[in-house]
Amino acid sequence: MQTVRVHNFAISLDGYATTLNGSRHHDFAAAGDTNIGATIMGGNMFAEIHGEWDERWNAWWGDAPPYQHPVFVLTHHPRESIEMSGGTTVHFVSDGIEAALEQACDAANGADVRIGGGASTIQQYLRAQLVDEMHFVILPMLIAAGQRLFDNLHGAIAGYECVELVASPPGVVHVRIARSPTGGG
Amino acid sequence: MQTVRVHNFAISLDGYATTLNGSRHHDFAAAGDTNIGATIMGGNMFAEIHGEWDERWNAWWGDAPPYQHPVFVLTHHPRESIEMSGGTTVHFVSDGIEAALEQACDAANGADVRIGGGASTIQQYLRAQLVDEMHFVILPMLIAAGQRLFDNLHGAIAGYECVELVASPPGVVHVRIARSPTGGG
Repeated sequence: MQTVRVHNFAISLDGYATTLNGSRHHDFAAAGDTNIGATIMGGNMFAEIHGEWDERWNAWWGDAPPYQHPVFVLTHHPRESIEMSGGTTVHFVSDGIEAALEQACDAANGADVRIGGGASTIQQYLRAQLVDEMHFVILPMLIAAGQRLFDNLHGAIAGYECVELVASPPGVVHVRIARSPTGGG
Repeated sequence: MQTVRVHNFAISLDGYATTLNGSRHHDFAAAGDTNIGATIMGGNMFAEIHGEWDERWNAWWGDAPPYQHPVFVLTHHPRESIEMSGGTTVHFVSDGIEAALEQACDAANGADVRIGGGASTIQQYLRAQLVDEMHFVILPMLIAAGQRLFDNLHGAIAGYECVELVASPPGVVHVRIARSPTGGG
């Protein structure tokens, strides 16, 4: 079954989204990458990654972008799709999160769709009850500022329950929550 | 050395203070209870516990209140001290958090002082840079409302670092943060 899920979104102990990638710390995260056929992300996240592409992503992922599948970027400004190395094509969607999800589901061809972030993009999909499962990583750090993952949800998170919680050295916690049987959806 | 610490304060995955006690889930928490010689708590927390004393605390702790040491309750209304069963005397302090801490440190007689809660009381002591160490427990639940532990801190938490992180079945995470060597205090 095709699911819509957040995978490997890293937050601090005090709840703030971090720009560090949880998979640097544990194989658990990389394993869950399998069967993702498309990724959706916010415009800010795309701009941040794209701007720092060489310095940041190459160091972790080798020569190619981390996606080898279609990426859908939410934006208010229509723009031509662009092809990147490693089989990643980036599409820009300007008609809302539902439209982006529909396109991503089609493009994923039966595989799962990942809501990549940032926090506010994930919150929009959670509020709309469109996320089936969310895996996030709690890193052993305090940040004290920024965007919280669990914010602006207006109670939408109450329909989820914790289905997995694993800690691994050096003090990283992996959490997976999923829509509860009695919850929404 | 006498330290001022938070011990066993339970929060949900989404960061909200819970009324559940983390020590129900793991011996780790109970072990850290040793060497606490006095507890400080906010007026709301005291009223809540006191009001439900029989139903709630007895179930977990037996016949006596969980404290066998002096308890200092922050309040705006001066009130006579009261003696409870099991060696617990409750004092009411109406001249501020520093005064309460001073009295608690004296009463603890060399042992540690625990800042018991609630969240806003802990935040006051953190903002005043008066907490040496904080142990909190992340429970595998989502609450979606209430008071966040990490809120209203105005950056005061940046002077702390994670010194311990342990997960235990059934999916409870124990975290200990302490003032970093380069931090405040």
